[in-house]
Amino acid sequence: MTIYNFSAGPAVLPGPVLKKAQEELLDYQGSGMSVMELSHRSSLFEDIITEAENLLRKLMDIPENYHVLFLQGGASLQFSSVPLNLAQNKKALYVNTGSWAKKAIAAAQAIPSVNTKVIASSEDKNFTYIPQITKDQIDQDASYLHITTNETIGGISYQEIPDTGRVPLVADMSSNILSNNYQVKDFGIIYAGAQKNIGPAGLTVVIIRDDLLNEQSLFAPMLDYRVQADSHSMYNTPPTFSIYMAKLVFEWLQDLGGVSQMVKYNQQKSGLLYDAIDRSNLFQSPVNKKDRSLTNIPFLTASDQLNQEFINAAQRQGFENLKGHRSVGGMRASLYNAFPLTGVKRLVDFMEEFEKAHGGD
Amino acid sequence: MTIYNFSAGPAVLPGPVLKKAQEELLDYQGSGMSVMELSHRSSLFEDIITEAENLLRKLMDIPENYHVLFLQGGASLQFSSVPLNLAQNKKALYVNTGSWAKKAIAAAQAIPSVNTKVIASSEDKNFTYIPQITKDQIDQDASYLHITTNETIGGISYQEIPDTGRVPLVADMSSNILSNNYQVKDFGIIYAGAQKNIGPAGLTVVIIRDDLLNEQSLFAPMLDYRVQADSHSMYNTPPTFSIYMAKLVFEWLQDLGGVSQMVKYNQQKSGLLYDAIDRSNLFQSPVNKKDRSLTNIPFLTASDQLNQEFINAAQRQGFENLKGHRSVGGMRASLYNAFPLTGVKRLVDFMEEFEKAHGGD
Repeated sequence: MTIYNFSAGPAVLPGPVLKKAQEELLDYQGSGMSVMELSHRSSLFEDIITEAENLLRKLMDIPENYHVLFLQGGASLQFSSVPLNLAQNKKALYVNTGSWAKKAIAAAQAIPSVNTKVIASSEDKNFTYIPQITKDQIDQDASYLHITTNETIGGISYQEIPDTGRVPLVADMSSNILSNNYQVKDFGIIYAGAQKNIGPAGLTVVIIRDDLLNEQSLFAPMLDYRVQADSHSMYNTPPTFSIYMAKLVFEWLQDLGGVSQMVKYNQQKSGLLYDAIDRSNLFQSPVNKKDRSLTNIPFLTASDQLNQEFINAAQRQGFENLKGHRSVGGMRASLYNAFPLTGVKRLVDFMEEFEKAHGGD
Repeated sequence: MTIYNFSAGPAVLPGPVLKKAQEELLDYQGSGMSVMELSHRSSLFEDIITEAENLLRKLMDIPENYHVLFLQGGASLQFSSVPLNLAQNKKALYVNTGSWAKKAIAAAQAIPSVNTKVIASSEDKNFTYIPQITKDQIDQDASYLHITTNETIGGISYQEIPDTGRVPLVADMSSNILSNNYQVKDFGIIYAGAQKNIGPAGLTVVIIRDDLLNEQSLFAPMLDYRVQADSHSMYNTPPTFSIYMAKLVFEWLQDLGGVSQMVKYNQQKSGLLYDAIDRSNLFQSPVNKKDRSLTNIPFLTASDQLNQEFINAAQRQGFENLKGHRSVGGMRASLYNAFPLTGVKRLVDFMEEFEKAHGGD
């Protein structure tokens, strides 16, 4: 039985990438060593991390005045690192769009020296839309405005990036990096956990504009952006195998035509599923149409029991990880870059069968 | 040509572990998914992390009142986490035994609220020995005493663990965890980067006694030991593949008879090399005999040029990564658990040939 893995992360990886990793797992490029056994100071690994950076720069069109860092700790560590580096004894602005934005906000609020302000929120409608942000809402003395470009749990995402004037925009892009049309130059900092669109869990990509590197050193060198930038992500041993996997994913993405092609492919995949939901009498989307995510698609029936029945029946057909996040219930299909169109078609067929069997027409 | 990888980390991994990882890389236990693609909330991954913890508890005889955490960021992040959690507005004591101890000390000193004191040092003899620590040197009001059980670069290690009275002993055990006879109950906290004796880079193991978990929450949840303990290392997405690899390494170690067998094996391996160095007229060990490390063995000739010649000639024979750390020069052989006895025998033979060819007898 073919398995379709709708996991929100760690998520499905491209088949050719896994095959290549498997082929060379015991002997990387005739070295007689696994990638996992390479010293991070070896020329073989230096080539891997350099190439990973170059590929990402090309894929995302990252300007030269931005550093690319390969770090650890996930977006959750960045929730603290960003305010610690940029906003001590300053104002930090946030937009609250759901579960992940709230975590970022709570992490900033936990730092006594940071003056954290939430300037917009969609909590009034249970985070089913992206609030409008206008420049006059943004205190131009703030150290940054933080947004979550895609809410993995709520299933909403920014279709347009707000104009913040001279205030740097900081974005948690974990769940839609490399599958959107955003321009890096519109951001001061972009960070993303790898385990959705980049590679295995345990790697965090940070893209930071040069002028935002801290002037004064931070009390913890591992969290200090300048330390990490100056040492090219090698202040200590980086997660070497995860960086190698990311490089393979970047190569795969480039071979398929890059991000713009992937956006078209993701629009096709998500369009199929949203159309199916919209024409269904059984399933519905809780999310404001114009703010719908391309990558994380929640949907539900009218009852928790029926949701569970659907999830169970789907799993028996090889559709894995369709259960919605425990905080919102229902179903969720995560359609990252590596998720195949065929899997969406099959799911749509299965949803229609399920609806018929449950009194739909 | 057989490759012998003497890297200090990331280091050689057990062959059977790499083979097993390769075999199931595309399909973990018939799930149709790679381990890298498993949700960290799936029962398959829950089993992996639980089993990894149980195996480590058994291998190290970890008492029940200790938590085992699987974190990210390496020992370098722990250098900051330890004082932030335990020593704000308190005294923190350190022993300076070389490069890694110095990094731990610097990280504590970088936190203004921590009163950092170095109570003993072997800097007077270029870190070639472990200083004697007696209980009367230890301020009993200190929050902890920090030691580096094995200096990866200097090649010295504690043969006996100092008695600290009621002051908790905190140890960076990165380069000799699972290859020594220490008792966990003698420590308050043990931490180790995985990339030497545990698995791939990107995983950090922290073993912490229950009463040392912070009472007050820290300003950064990812660094907060209580948050990590309460969430069983799942506060955010853990480095799932690295934890899986660690589990395989723990299984391999258990099958070989556990840590006590490994210590014997490591004594045999390092004994062979130290004997060869001691009887040589060309090579010498810079380290005090009784403090010699089992896992990291520096050695050198009388000239930098001859060292380099030896390293180059060795590499041509398949001996990889014998170059000493850039801060000390010379050669270094890292003989972690997975490094085979045959490799040491071959190296010793090669050293003797090299010595003969360079005028030795």
